[in-house]
Amino acid sequence: MKSFNSDNFNNEGSIFMAANRVTKNCNIVLYGVPYDGTTSFRPGARFGPAAIREVSNGIETFCPEFEMDLEDLNFADIGSLEINYGDPQPVINKVEKVTYQLINQGKKPLMLGGEHSITIGAVKASANHFNNLIVIQLDAHADLREKWLGSMYNHACTMRRCLDFLPNKKIFQIGIRSGTKSEFLEMKKYNRLIHCEKSEPAKELSDALIKYKDNPIYLTIDLDWFDPSVMPGTGTPEPGGYFWNDFSKIINILKEYQIIGADVVELAPQLDISGISSIFAAKVVRSLIMLLNKG
Amino acid sequence: MKSFNSDNFNNEGSIFMAANRVTKNCNIVLYGVPYDGTTSFRPGARFGPAAIREVSNGIETFCPEFEMDLEDLNFADIGSLEINYGDPQPVINKVEKVTYQLINQGKKPLMLGGEHSITIGAVKASANHFNNLIVIQLDAHADLREKWLGSMYNHACTMRRCLDFLPNKKIFQIGIRSGTKSEFLEMKKYNRLIHCEKSEPAKELSDALIKYKDNPIYLTIDLDWFDPSVMPGTGTPEPGGYFWNDFSKIINILKEYQIIGADVVELAPQLDISGISSIFAAKVVRSLIMLLNKG
Amino acid sequence: MKSFNSDNFNNEGSIFMAANRVTKNCNIVLYGVPYDGTTSFRPGARFGPAAIREVSNGIETFCPEFEMDLEDLNFADIGSLEINYGDPQPVINKVEKVTYQLINQGKKPLMLGGEHSITIGAVKASANHFNNLIVIQLDAHADLREKWLGSMYNHACTMRRCLDFLPNKKIFQIGIRSGTKSEFLEMKKYNRLIHCEKSEPAKELSDALIKYKDNPIYLTIDLDWFDPSVMPGTGTPEPGGYFWNDFSKIINILKEYQIIGADVVELAPQLDISGISSIFAAKVVRSLIMLLNKG
Amino acid sequence: MKSFNSDNFNNEGSIFMAANRVTKNCNIVLYGVPYDGTTSFRPGARFGPAAIREVSNGIETFCPEFEMDLEDLNFADIGSLEINYGDPQPVINKVEKVTYQLINQGKKPLMLGGEHSITIGAVKASANHFNNLIVIQLDAHADLREKWLGSMYNHACTMRRCLDFLPNKKIFQIGIRSGTKSEFLEMKKYNRLIHCEKSEPAKELSDALIKYKDNPIYLTIDLDWFDPSVMPGTGTPEPGGYFWNDFSKIINILKEYQIIGADVVELAPQLDISGISSIFAAKVVRSLIMLLNKG
Amino acid sequence: MKSFNSDNFNNEGSIFMAANRVTKNCNIVLYGVPYDGTTSFRPGARFGPAAIREVSNGIETFCPEFEMDLEDLNFADIGSLEINYGDPQPVINKVEKVTYQLINQGKKPLMLGGEHSITIGAVKASANHFNNLIVIQLDAHADLREKWLGSMYNHACTMRRCLDFLPNKKIFQIGIRSGTKSEFLEMKKYNRLIHCEKSEPAKELSDALIKYKDNPIYLTIDLDWFDPSVMPGTGTPEPGGYFWNDFSKIINILKEYQIIGADVVELAPQLDISGISSIFAAKVVRSLIMLLNKG
Amino acid sequence: MKSFNSDNFNNEGSIFMAANRVTKNCNIVLYGVPYDGTTSFRPGARFGPAAIREVSNGIETFCPEFEMDLEDLNFADIGSLEINYGDPQPVINKVEKVTYQLINQGKKPLMLGGEHSITIGAVKASANHFNNLIVIQLDAHADLREKWLGSMYNHACTMRRCLDFLPNKKIFQIGIRSGTKSEFLEMKKYNRLIHCEKSEPAKELSDALIKYKDNPIYLTIDLDWFDPSVMPGTGTPEPGGYFWNDFSKIINILKEYQIIGADVVELAPQLDISGISSIFAAKVVRSLIMLLNKG
Repeated sequence: MKSFNSDNFNNEGSIFMAANRVTKNCNIVLYGVPYDGTTSFRPGARFGPAAIREVSNGIETFCPEFEMDLEDLNFADIGSLEINYGDPQPVINKVEKVTYQLINQGKKPLMLGGEHSITIGAVKASANHFNNLIVIQLDAHADLREKWLGSMYNHACTMRRCLDFLPNKKIFQIGIRSGTKSEFLEMKKYNRLIHCEKSEPAKELSDALIKYKDNPIYLTIDLDWFDPSVMPGTGTPEPGGYFWNDFSKIINILKEYQIIGADVVELAPQLDISGISSIFAAKVVRSLIMLLNKG
Repeated sequence: MKSFNSDNFNNEGSIFMAANRVTKNCNIVLYGVPYDGTTSFRPGARFGPAAIREVSNGIETFCPEFEMDLEDLNFADIGSLEINYGDPQPVINKVEKVTYQLINQGKKPLMLGGEHSITIGAVKASANHFNNLIVIQLDAHADLREKWLGSMYNHACTMRRCLDFLPNKKIFQIGIRSGTKSEFLEMKKYNRLIHCEKSEPAKELSDALIKYKDNPIYLTIDLDWFDPSVMPGTGTPEPGGYFWNDFSKIINILKEYQIIGADVVELAPQLDISGISSIFAAKVVRSLIMLLNKG
Repeated sequence: MKSFNSDNFNNEGSIFMAANRVTKNCNIVLYGVPYDGTTSFRPGARFGPAAIREVSNGIETFCPEFEMDLEDLNFADIGSLEINYGDPQPVINKVEKVTYQLINQGKKPLMLGGEHSITIGAVKASANHFNNLIVIQLDAHADLREKWLGSMYNHACTMRRCLDFLPNKKIFQIGIRSGTKSEFLEMKKYNRLIHCEKSEPAKELSDALIKYKDNPIYLTIDLDWFDPSVMPGTGTPEPGGYFWNDFSKIINILKEYQIIGADVVELAPQLDISGISSIFAAKVVRSLIMLLNKG
Repeated sequence: MKSFNSDNFNNEGSIFMAANRVTKNCNIVLYGVPYDGTTSFRPGARFGPAAIREVSNGIETFCPEFEMDLEDLNFADIGSLEINYGDPQPVINKVEKVTYQLINQGKKPLMLGGEHSITIGAVKASANHFNNLIVIQLDAHADLREKWLGSMYNHACTMRRCLDFLPNKKIFQIGIRSGTKSEFLEMKKYNRLIHCEKSEPAKELSDALIKYKDNPIYLTIDLDWFDPSVMPGTGTPEPGGYFWNDFSKIINILKEYQIIGADVVELAPQLDISGISSIFAAKVVRSLIMLLNKG
Repeated sequence: MKSFNSDNFNNEGSIFMAANRVTKNCNIVLYGVPYDGTTSFRPGARFGPAAIREVSNGIETFCPEFEMDLEDLNFADIGSLEINYGDPQPVINKVEKVTYQLINQGKKPLMLGGEHSITIGAVKASANHFNNLIVIQLDAHADLREKWLGSMYNHACTMRRCLDFLPNKKIFQIGIRSGTKSEFLEMKKYNRLIHCEKSEPAKELSDALIKYKDNPIYLTIDLDWFDPSVMPGTGTPEPGGYFWNDFSKIINILKEYQIIGADVVELAPQLDISGISSIFAAKVVRSLIMLLNKG
Repeated sequence: MKSFNSDNFNNEGSIFMAANRVTKNCNIVLYGVPYDGTTSFRPGARFGPAAIREVSNGIETFCPEFEMDLEDLNFADIGSLEINYGDPQPVINKVEKVTYQLINQGKKPLMLGGEHSITIGAVKASANHFNNLIVIQLDAHADLREKWLGSMYNHACTMRRCLDFLPNKKIFQIGIRSGTKSEFLEMKKYNRLIHCEKSEPAKELSDALIKYKDNPIYLTIDLDWFDPSVMPGTGTPEPGGYFWNDFSKIINILKEYQIIGADVVELAPQLDISGISSIFAAKVVRSLIMLLNKG
């Protein structure tokens, strides 16, 4: 596929297990965006895509939860986008462009970050193509700042920017546990926050989604949604997070919906010498490939 | 405040986020005690106060559980006590002295350890000032040894020494999961141990505390109370511990009580390269500032 | 005991806390097998036995769950088997031989791995001596491959080989969460898999075991059964695992059964700089000593 | 000094040993610039200033080579510049502005990086004030690229940009051992490269500098000039580097010259868990303070 | 080239910088052998080939010592050999076969280890094709044991096995600093040991090689030849080793000789978190590509 | 030997390679003192003795420099002294007592630290038995403070205390490169400092020692004498240190003298994950055993 030539993608690194290198016949396409230019606390998300691919062979291709095997699916891993560090805007623009091309060809994009700001480009491309797009966000942080550290494209502004593009302004923010007072007020005001102490997140989500069966959904997963104990390798770990079983229940609900694209961001593998974060992320990606295949 | 001059406190290091450097107008005062001289297994708690302060900017000042913002509170971080390694007794004496001065001025002390032995000084100062003081301990270990490795002030003797000073001998030991046979017998005999498999710790605590609404309470948190997966950076990790949500429930109960002082001890940050332990501890401290502000 | 002379065992390293060096008067005997020759993903299980012994003094000899103290038990730690790396078959043969000698003398073997393939030797020795032996496996992986990476003795083939020796082909595979499609089909077909989302593993196990009160049981614990957050130091961590409390409940059930031997395998301590994995494993071993003493 | 108010500098972190917080009466002024936005290989130089300050108390204030004690000198550490990540140009502009203010007040700037691109601002400020400024560079890399990864201000372009500002285009590049073919040709063509296998670098430098006794000199030290064995904590380590003794000899020569400012860049402390890189950098800074005091 | 199909080589990982994937038009061919099955002390050399490739982009393609650029050379990186762990003999046989095929096609093999035992296969293949082959070994250890830990193919037996195949028994062992008494006696008896305290290794080597101008030479580099300070990431580091400059001088001499193949073994990257060992090894490989291109 | 019973020594850990457990027939006796109670900067020397023993099997028993094999020598490793943390004085007293017992039995003590303060006890015992004892110190730091951090027995006071006991006040301080102004003045005044830039340390030592052929000598080696690149695992690394070859030359000179005891202190192994520091220390110990055997 000509448009993804060497000017755009670097595919000299490892490949996700069982993936094809070319997108032909594949309806799901993985690509990495190794950008962490606005990360202020602990950088390293740039190493995320490579780490996920490298450890992916450490888990099985078969998933007992989906009862599905990656070997039986047609999906491609086309490498990582060539980007420059520094200013986020050109990176987001490039993400938007390549995501739009994929969607336009009938592919479902599955983006590996990199920091969360890259989601802005992918959601913009999706919103351009799909009417009534809604976004589901798994994240520890609200990411609703208008501007942060001098930039409107800082990773703390991701959902604010996504709201700019979504015609119906509909996002579901699952399990957010960190933010400013105004961010929490806003999430509550617009019924975006899916989470409460007494019930399970999966139950609330199920109820909230019930009238969106026909909406195309973009799913963005900031890995710091998970508890720091299972995901120490992320830039801004936030105590009190979620575990694999919580994720598993949410995925189970989403099987019934139209997921048109997804991303997994904020893995900073060098912060976790044990490697469990990268393996966890690879298993999340395996589930998403199967979810996208279903949807 | 003259008494906390450079002879006593070193304030050349980082400061806890949003804190003042001087205690004027502040009713809550943080101070570090970087001592780990009796730690036999894995030292490093001396680095705890600095680590907590350094990472504190990595979390938000707003707490959605308290719906409170550190920016709105008046609290001071006056630096770390200048102490010598070696013999614990002079350190404990110095802790007692500075804690007493703070309490005497109407401040609530919030001490960052260091190893658990420093709590002896803080509880002694508190018991001198407050009649009917009781102590609540979150800890993996009973710390009731009379003497250990040749010293009555070893960190394994902390609660034994505190009992020496408490007129009514009342301590609540929450979730202790490691100790000698005689320590467990004693805890059970005096109904100190708050924990059982079938009910939640928070429920038991709630019941046990009901008749102590008017008592001043000192709260000591040995971070090894938490599960080693969320708190690997501590000297004597003990499998089978507690998580953020357990802590959150306990704090919720304590909001109704008179907490007059608190400490967070046994963070040994260099044992956890990922840094999640220090961030966890900083979030615990954020909650305690808000708890002390309420009480 | 002459047969365990220096040709077989190296006892120049550390010893498990409170253990004897000689087996006389001891009915439980620990021995290490520092072999990881077939591990393909992340080696290092060879360092497991030494790490468990070294950190064992960091926990107490008293166990509040068993209300038992290691100091009151007679058990020996006879060191680690002298083995060569490379081909697994001679190692497994040696394990079989020494395990058989121990069982023949009325001892209960407690083997510290090393990778899971060494279990093959211990189960073979046990099956030779005990009619009606059944095996209980705690593991993340099914380990039912016929051959893997060119070898029938790869650690991914452990339970397949054990089935070769068990006359009644009875194994219980608790909480397996990773495997091939055919492995899962086989486990379900023969009702081996003890695990389901809705009930607790302990409950299912209790029901399944009810008719095996009189059977001798060999218990093999691959530490990757536990969640990677509490056990990052293992070669093939698999997200979504179990915690101490789950283990504790299973042990509580097994107290009623005839455990004739056990092993703890796949600790790769160098992958976990914080050391919590080794301490966790040491506590597992402490429980097993007490379980074997009961049984 | 009003211009260095809290809008510009953050001084809530540690302070370099024996330094003052205010610049009054101090002719040497340290400041950090925690920027690493263009680093493509291994980020982390943003943590350099904090790390140097934190470990500085681990070495003595007395230097036997200078026979001088920091306690006897008047120098200030005014904290770290508040900067945004992302685009390097605003950072370099801010560096230029504060450096110029310092020089204008008769102070000698000593900047702690951060990545090498920040030197562009400091050299520009210096060249604006001092006629005939020359620059001495200790570095593994030539840094003479016109543009790199889409930016003229990438840290690989540092010396190219400095040449833009220097009226006489005079820089000495000491011990460069990595670059493109054209970079090496240029360095040789203009006699900039101070290094050859047969003689000592110090000797060559001494000869080359002989006619610049009256020139103001800015000294920039990219810590990757040192051998990776003594400085593993840097983004682009290059084998075959220099040791402390080599540095010591160069400093000894420079005592005779007019050093008007200096910087120490590219420490990425999190890459070196042992901490020897940060301690090394702190000792380099100690020498530079003394060199600036002399000059 | 058909014979290196997917049955033999895995090329899904990273590629050495500037290399081709196919051997056509390339006279130098890199391949990895990720085997460490006989390593007894600290395993991990299996991760060597991947680590060298991954970091290779961190150094320049131009080498100022050779005044040569990798971009101007034709060389291929065909991936890593698919091998099983365990028994070394099948691995060595496979290495022999693929090395022979390369040599037979007029290519120069450049093998990346993996442990030193794989050299046995490469030297055997070379000796089969080239009469009068001699071997030059850079190593800390003599590797002359007849058998070790039960195997004739242990990495401590590498040079002993090579001597089996060399018709004239001529090897030069440069800078060996560890071995048994009998190994040292043998090296001295046959004038193999190139090293003495008073002169430089390079000088001795130059003298010793003078009569071998016409001999084909295989060069094997065990990275533990280098000092542990520059190469901490190796299984059996031995204090008192060599530095880059020593290597550089040796390479300079070897430019005049007929190097027909080479290998770089024993990088165990996970032992060196800073990454300097892998970068060092990648620079060694860069030099060898240029040396092979010359020879 | 009765006096070294279990009340004094713990021998449940590893043993130095090729050593005996009992002192009978051994004229050299190793013992560990795992004390680091006064270390203020980075603790961990308590883990030194265990680390040295554990890695000792990673090097050969034969030393090509001495042409001697540990297997041919009679030396014992009697384990590590049981000590309490905290106050240094009881530890030093215990060291003095056991060292005196050994010397009195005609043994040569070889003590493994632990921090440098333990040397005080060993030198005191030696001075009590040997008239005309002199001390040779390899160290980065002068250690001549009268008192430090409140204690006369801090490890920064080691040589000051030793001078108290030495009748002729004769110590040689080799290669000291860090200290206060007054420490350097004192060392120079009394001609103690053996080091200068222009000549080799070994030459100066040789000259200085010439008139002490008949004096008994105690040799104390603080491992921070070595360069931090080869010895990162020490509490107070000081850039600009020495390498193996420098040590080798000094040992070569000392072969001609009467070394009656020695120690190796300040290894803090947990600061060096690569493990090269411990291996280096083990090789130093191997040389000292051979030196003591000669002397």
